[in-house]
Amino acid sequence: MADIERILADIDSNLDRSLERLFALLRIKSISADPHYKQDCRDAAAWCASALTDIGIESTIRDTIGHPMVVGHYRSARDGAPHLLFYGHYDVQPVDPVGLWERDPFDPAVVDVQGEKRIVARGAEDDKGQLMTFIEAARAWMAVGGGLPVNLTVLIEGEEESASPSMIPFLTTNSDELTADLALVCDTSMWDRKTPAITTMLRGLLYEEVFVQAASHDLHSGMYGSAARNPIHVLTKVLADLRDENGRITIPGFYEGVPEISSELKKQWDSLRFDDAAFLSEIGLTDAAGESGHPVLQQIWARPTAEVNGIIGGYIGEGPKTVIPAKASAKISFRLVGEQDPETIRRNFRAFVEERVPPDCKVTFVSHGGDRAVSQPGDSLWVRKAQRALTEEWGREAVLIAMGGSIPIVTQFKRILGMDSLLIGFGLDDDRIHSPNEKFNLTSFHGGTRSWARVLGAIAE
Amino acid sequence: MADIERILADIDSNLDRSLERLFALLRIKSISADPHYKQDCRDAAAWCASALTDIGIESTIRDTIGHPMVVGHYRSARDGAPHLLFYGHYDVQPVDPVGLWERDPFDPAVVDVQGEKRIVARGAEDDKGQLMTFIEAARAWMAVGGGLPVNLTVLIEGEEESASPSMIPFLTTNSDELTADLALVCDTSMWDRKTPAITTMLRGLLYEEVFVQAASHDLHSGMYGSAARNPIHVLTKVLADLRDENGRITIPGFYEGVPEISSELKKQWDSLRFDDAAFLSEIGLTDAAGESGHPVLQQIWARPTAEVNGIIGGYIGEGPKTVIPAKASAKISFRLVGEQDPETIRRNFRAFVEERVPPDCKVTFVSHGGDRAVSQPGDSLWVRKAQRALTEEWGREAVLIAMGGSIPIVTQFKRILGMDSLLIGFGLDDDRIHSPNEKFNLTSFHGGTRSWARVLGAIAE
Repeated sequence: MADIERILADIDSNLDRSLERLFALLRIKSISADPHYKQDCRDAAAWCASALTDIGIESTIRDTIGHPMVVGHYRSARDGAPHLLFYGHYDVQPVDPVGLWERDPFDPAVVDVQGEKRIVARGAEDDKGQLMTFIEAARAWMAVGGGLPVNLTVLIEGEEESASPSMIPFLTTNSDELTADLALVCDTSMWDRKTPAITTMLRGLLYEEVFVQAASHDLHSGMYGSAARNPIHVLTKVLADLRDENGRITIPGFYEGVPEISSELKKQWDSLRFDDAAFLSEIGLTDAAGESGHPVLQQIWARPTAEVNGIIGGYIGEGPKTVIPAKASAKISFRLVGEQDPETIRRNFRAFVEERVPPDCKVTFVSHGGDRAVSQPGDSLWVRKAQRALTEEWGREAVLIAMGGSIPIVTQFKRILGMDSLLIGFGLDDDRIHSPNEKFNLTSFHGGTRSWARVLGAIAE
Repeated sequence: MADIERILADIDSNLDRSLERLFALLRIKSISADPHYKQDCRDAAAWCASALTDIGIESTIRDTIGHPMVVGHYRSARDGAPHLLFYGHYDVQPVDPVGLWERDPFDPAVVDVQGEKRIVARGAEDDKGQLMTFIEAARAWMAVGGGLPVNLTVLIEGEEESASPSMIPFLTTNSDELTADLALVCDTSMWDRKTPAITTMLRGLLYEEVFVQAASHDLHSGMYGSAARNPIHVLTKVLADLRDENGRITIPGFYEGVPEISSELKKQWDSLRFDDAAFLSEIGLTDAAGESGHPVLQQIWARPTAEVNGIIGGYIGEGPKTVIPAKASAKISFRLVGEQDPETIRRNFRAFVEERVPPDCKVTFVSHGGDRAVSQPGDSLWVRKAQRALTEEWGREAVLIAMGGSIPIVTQFKRILGMDSLLIGFGLDDDRIHSPNEKFNLTSFHGGTRSWARVLGAIAE
């Protein structure tokens, strides 16, 4: 344990330099969903490859048909060291509505909010901040630990926020190079500000975009209303039909494969004493909107959803315009649980929409990907070692939790590379990821770096 | 009749110069709904005032809190000449989606489409082209008719496409100056390419904008869906609820004041042999969308509507984004008929929405105006004189029709100035007003100018 103490001391004394490196990465506008930022994504990839190579993990940029991957390798001097693959992503979400940011989303700073130090920027948490906790931990092991105690492959992608179109072909083509004993994924949250967590259940995600076209061109609502079909009416009717008065989703077969929540799991989650009212109050709400009969934690961890993420049609500028638009469209995503099959649900959803579109309208669909839910064994040796390391660092028992979001890579690691993943992350509920004023607490960044240093040591033992 | 023949000949021989003047006006980007084009609106007003003054109708720009009015006066040398007020508007609709225009909307040209000459530009018909038919007719009367045969006031506004916020105060303040025996309004259509028409019934218009706010900021749909209320779900449900399966609007009391269509009117409209299928087919549709049991002509002339003119919420950029937005909004307009009261319907609509918005969401409304439907006596002396003049010009009996759109100024002339309006216009159903590739047929522009010359003569007799 002398080793680990020196490594942790190195992390502590280099915190400012670690932050400088994180800021350099945060300044790169690597928005993967917007083609306008293609070169910025490439710049972020180059920055990551160079940062890894600098500390002794030889890394290169690997082209894809989309944004490039970064792959690095390190071979430990220790005999019998386990082989880990660390995964993160350098791309970030779009920043709109940009007017709601209190500062330039790509000009990071540490802001003091009532004594709490927060790193504020797009990507501060998701995933640049989280990614850098691992890289900075590896840097400390290299600097004062005589190198890493594990064999390491690093995979950093640039399409996580836009459905990772290149990932499956890349994993398939490079499966030999990328397969390890275990994947480490740093894109999840702590239970709360003081309690570390390992995430063992993730919801899946199916994302569809629907376009309804009615007339051949925009029409004057005086001359044509109500004789001409209004595609906004068609679309809003379809979307309203998606759920019944109890919040249940009405697509035929939608709940096939949704498991009942076991009484053991219920008991475990009850013991977390999750506060529904506090959770909702933090976002300005008072009533849970989802399926009646399910408390909030069940709704967000273990129940499937259908959410309209965007809708547009007709005139959206200032002032009035009396138009009947020719088309309208919506983006809709489904969070999946248990054995729900994305392909079946996609098919059933499209049929559900088509049934509700009048014969003289045209409906088209664009798929933005689909992945099953995933769960990892909670009692493996890896999980127990990591749990112990996290508990030591934070002085509180690390808890095993679920997560409402999707990390499709975890499914793909299992399916394509036969590899389990260990999901450890240092996000907090109020980090506003995907929203204006995203932040990452300095305690998360610093404690996260120290945590990874300990986890690497524990896994190598 | 020698006079009128010389005037018509002058119009014919000056058609190219008339077109040049129209093009100069069309080049001015006077989009009133968008504050970005404020100076362009002022430029259009100045152009109109100068054009009127040039031909002997002394005109000035009159400031309002919005876009300026143009007012001109002319006193006829003839004893006992009637006093007319001509009304038009120099402002135009926004041009989006601009990508669908086949040419720059503000670079007018005469385009030959299968032997039919079309003036193509934003405002080519609505209302710059129509407005200029009157001004060019007045020009010819001045040039070769020894001056106008009527006393004339001209009122040209710049806010018609954005709910005319300045009109009521302006009419009220200047009622003595603006009151005449009759208003001439040139913003309507012919029955078809060969049949002139006088419009004696107009629908009213109520325009509302609705904003639904749920959470305090945009949320990640993985972390918060479905526990957090999604304002798009709230809004689409409200909008879907607005009509029942028979296309009837469900707002309580909505149909109060909607008259049954008299059997006489039914007979008159039947005689027009309106072709429902052809009307819909021209805009790429096959089925009428409105109230079942009402043929298309009744739907667009004599039945009220509720149309969503615009909707926006969440992520509308390229690619997927897994967001639950904090807010969503929609623009909704109602066409009113008979004695429907805009204020009552506004109140009932807002209550209808509020009832459907959950307690922890906030709903706000913005009004974009409201006007009752209006109808004019079809058997007045003015109508009969104008009908005769139009019939002479076009060689076909001028018909009395209704119109689905609203011209609030007609209501205001009646209510504030006690003045009836004579609605004569030369638009065609396929003019694509308010849409990309708006056009005005050259026959409409030329025949419209000749028509006004004749109508002025007939009214003066």
